[in-house]
Amino acid sequence: MNIHIIGGGAVGLFFAAQWCEKHAVTLWTRTEQQAEMISRGGIRVLENHMENIYPVNSKKIESLYVEGDLVVVAVKQYHMKEVLPLLQNAAAQSVLFLQNGMSHLDFLEQVPHPHLYAASVEHGLAKIDGRTIQVNGRNKTNIGSLRSGTAGIIDQLQTGSFRFDWNENSYHMLIEKMAANAIINPLTALLKVKNGEIAENARFRAIAKDLSREFASVFSYKTAEDTFQSVLSICTKTADNESSMLKDMKAGNLTEIDAIVGVLLKTAEKNHRSVPAFQLLYNMIKGKENTPEFMSK
Amino acid sequence: MNIHIIGGGAVGLFFAAQWCEKHAVTLWTRTEQQAEMISRGGIRVLENHMENIYPVNSKKIESLYVEGDLVVVAVKQYHMKEVLPLLQNAAAQSVLFLQNGMSHLDFLEQVPHPHLYAASVEHGLAKIDGRTIQVNGRNKTNIGSLRSGTAGIIDQLQTGSFRFDWNENSYHMLIEKMAANAIINPLTALLKVKNGEIAENARFRAIAKDLSREFASVFSYKTAEDTFQSVLSICTKTADNESSMLKDMKAGNLTEIDAIVGVLLKTAEKNHRSVPAFQLLYNMIKGKENTPEFMSK
Repeated sequence: MNIHIIGGGAVGLFFAAQWCEKHAVTLWTRTEQQAEMISRGGIRVLENHMENIYPVNSKKIESLYVEGDLVVVAVKQYHMKEVLPLLQNAAAQSVLFLQNGMSHLDFLEQVPHPHLYAASVEHGLAKIDGRTIQVNGRNKTNIGSLRSGTAGIIDQLQTGSFRFDWNENSYHMLIEKMAANAIINPLTALLKVKNGEIAENARFRAIAKDLSREFASVFSYKTAEDTFQSVLSICTKTADNESSMLKDMKAGNLTEIDAIVGVLLKTAEKNHRSVPAFQLLYNMIKGKENTPEFMSK
Repeated sequence: MNIHIIGGGAVGLFFAAQWCEKHAVTLWTRTEQQAEMISRGGIRVLENHMENIYPVNSKKIESLYVEGDLVVVAVKQYHMKEVLPLLQNAAAQSVLFLQNGMSHLDFLEQVPHPHLYAASVEHGLAKIDGRTIQVNGRNKTNIGSLRSGTAGIIDQLQTGSFRFDWNENSYHMLIEKMAANAIINPLTALLKVKNGEIAENARFRAIAKDLSREFASVFSYKTAEDTFQSVLSICTKTADNESSMLKDMKAGNLTEIDAIVGVLLKTAEKNHRSVPAFQLLYNMIKGKENTPEFMSK
């Protein structure tokens, strides 16, 4: 396939590297500098003390008058608005969204492409520099349809070491990912701990349990106990991983709190549910966003 | 008066210095080393870029077979248990408790002295070393009776620059202090901010408002709005101050979370009130207590 990936973060780099031997891949980055780094040196993947280089074509994103089979949107949710007009100009059969949270679902009506997919990524990835990522653990990517998509796509996308699972209910898939992100991300960022500590520390586990109860009261397709167990399992599997929100806070970046907990708060309000613990976490993160000194203190 | 002060923290040192010119003061410390420092060099008070030395007799506390007019208990609540047997051996007319929170009220029945008082301290104090404190701002000490005490005591205790206010209802006085401590202390400790930022940052102010609502639902003698306004006023008045809990976390010490938020949680449970935001703060602090690396990260 002819694949265009928008976004040179850890996920964009990883997917580009995994696909480049089987597909014609172009990675669209925010800066000229990063595009040049990648085009010149390839994408560098560090995994199990090994280093592999993958040659990938990369360009700075300005316009996207391209033709492709698949456009993959791998930008953070708070960049969706900037990317949307470019995306609308890309002639492609299919678009795949890799966002956390669910706020990108609000944009779907403005995306004209025939097939839309969403995925949730369960690989443990960390970006080292503009062309280098560290793979801390491979799991799989869950993918589902948001508009006229079929399970056939996973045969095209997956490789031996890069697995995809088809999810009939993509809404539930996104909610499941959101539950994990809503609980693990703000907690790890505020407490400055790796994922594993949420499962290991009895006090933090108690918090995760309380938050699971609040989450399940809003998105009621799953029980509080199921949500809690799934959060614990993710924390254990990715014990050494730093959550994306902890990384963003450390780097003094914006976080995805609005796409994750923000959406949860809005949904709770609409359904007249009370979620005071999430409200507290939300305000703590929002009050601390963009204050890099929090992390160095 | 013949005054014995138990505890060489910021409050014990400050009170000893303020009283030593008018009364015979002995300060009882936990270590021999601190007692020697104080007896040899006096208590050093830094205030408004000035330094004053107050000669005070100090001893290591082991037994307290003393006779005095007043014994002042200025230890943290989690040291109350150790201090109690010593206190019971002190022959004195009156005992004054300076604890935060309310957990010391559980001990009152075991304290045999005729007159018991409690006070809440509104001075901004920081301990610099074993004999030195920094006064960041003077306000007053609220004092009330827990057993057969009278307002007459304030004439004896106060000096021109060391004010005491009599409170008819000492229980309300302690609750009011507890509201401030329960909201300001854990928040400032987790967010690593000075008191003023709780009032200045709109997100943190929103948290203080939510917590005021939970607090008032448990201790209902005051409205949520009154509690919130009183918290804001304290944050503004002590803007440059670091809360005792922030200091304790930074030093890797135990905190007073159990005496403050712990008592609140127990009272809420007894009254069948739900206080999820306080529960979250409590678990965050408890999970982080005694982990000095949190503060250096």
